[in-house]
Amino acid sequence: MDSHSPGDHAAREREDEAAPCAALVVIGDEILSGRTQDRNIATIARWLGARGIALKEVRIVPDEEEAIITAVRALKDMVDYLFTTGGIGPTHDDITAESIAKALDRPLVVHEEAYRRLCAYYGIERFTPARQRMARTPEGAVLIDNPISIAPGFRVENIFVLAGVPEIAAAMLDSLESMITGGPPLKSRVLDVPLPESAFADALTAIAGRFPTVRIGSYPYYRDGRAGAQIVLRGRDESRLEEAVAAVREAAGRAGVTARLVRE
Amino acid sequence: MDSHSPGDHAAREREDEAAPCAALVVIGDEILSGRTQDRNIATIARWLGARGIALKEVRIVPDEEEAIITAVRALKDMVDYLFTTGGIGPTHDDITAESIAKALDRPLVVHEEAYRRLCAYYGIERFTPARQRMARTPEGAVLIDNPISIAPGFRVENIFVLAGVPEIAAAMLDSLESMITGGPPLKSRVLDVPLPESAFADALTAIAGRFPTVRIGSYPYYRDGRAGAQIVLRGRDESRLEEAVAAVREAAGRAGVTARLVRE
Repeated sequence: MDSHSPGDHAAREREDEAAPCAALVVIGDEILSGRTQDRNIATIARWLGARGIALKEVRIVPDEEEAIITAVRALKDMVDYLFTTGGIGPTHDDITAESIAKALDRPLVVHEEAYRRLCAYYGIERFTPARQRMARTPEGAVLIDNPISIAPGFRVENIFVLAGVPEIAAAMLDSLESMITGGPPLKSRVLDVPLPESAFADALTAIAGRFPTVRIGSYPYYRDGRAGAQIVLRGRDESRLEEAVAAVREAAGRAGVTARLVRE
Repeated sequence: MDSHSPGDHAAREREDEAAPCAALVVIGDEILSGRTQDRNIATIARWLGARGIALKEVRIVPDEEEAIITAVRALKDMVDYLFTTGGIGPTHDDITAESIAKALDRPLVVHEEAYRRLCAYYGIERFTPARQRMARTPEGAVLIDNPISIAPGFRVENIFVLAGVPEIAAAMLDSLESMITGGPPLKSRVLDVPLPESAFADALTAIAGRFPTVRIGSYPYYRDGRAGAQIVLRGRDESRLEEAVAAVREAAGRAGVTARLVRE
């Protein structure tokens, strides 16, 4: 049985199953109205990818309790780590903490350490009811530091609750390192093939069939009036990955063009 | 019974239920890996919003049949219009058409008009099997024009299948106008309040309570070392909206700052 056998499909599935995976719930009317361009998805996806954790699904839901609860319940048992962004500020539309508490059937409590940090930051005089709201977490939550505006995120069960403001979400990710266990990293290579995607598709299909443990994606572009495609190859076994890269180069050569390795 | 009564909550719900709504499934490993920053969500959200259609949920799923089928089946009965982007090209990883067919229990067929257009565009000699794949749709589909690279999107039942390349997705949206029925437009106003969000939150909560038919969102920002918030007010009744805007201005005035109306 050579390494191109159909058995490799099963091998990839086993590999995938062994690797940790994650999902993300983006909470925010401003994304669903198109007012704000989300930047957290790409940041979190890359952060997870660098740690060998596959992002399996993202859901964007409005600032509505029922929608948040439904998404959290649907995803939390599907993955190792569930992330959320948004809705942890001081205003009336920030309902993430209570929604997560309800989704997990945990009481919402004042987290003593969060309360202490926020009170120290604002001063007792300026520690208004709205600011006090930011100290509430589901019972049993562990804080996630917020070096920018103090109000912490939190982890409860396998759920990581981050801020929506991209700079704060990114800073919170940095402090999560010790709370997660990564997997074997997925290596990737990107080749630029200066051919219309459809002219290279049959060759690529054949290569994808020969290398079932390598995921091969094709992303067409149009630049200066010319069509081309970036071929992204990803896999855990570096030598198989290089063989697949060589196969793409060879096929491009047969089609009369040079496939150039590009930085991602 | 004045207009601030709790009955207004029910009024907003009735208004919401009457208005058409939509969901979006973004199909693409490249978004979930963080390699590509999605741009279609914001484009489609704004296009829908301008037509009085609320985007209720977005799911981003990988290029995997089971994930696409699950998302499509879950969302299509929840909304008036379900959009998808991505996975309609000629390569092996473009599996949207067959996945949608399976989700709807419809056969996947060669769409004659799509076949004719693609054949005319490529010429019979260059109309390879990979290119022919792009002519397949679920049975009963209506084409959505692609003025850029010919390969059409399609509508089947209440599902609108668009390309993933942002320029093409946007061009396809333009040709959908006659296929959808919009709703009463949601008007919006944006006020800039130069105060830390948490200093204005209690006032805002009171205003949100007084104007239940107006959705009020608060989006904090940090600029030149100063904290502020953009307050977004949205509603279908313009006079109530203006009253809520006036209430925000008044509250800002009491806090010693000027709330400035900004363009969105």
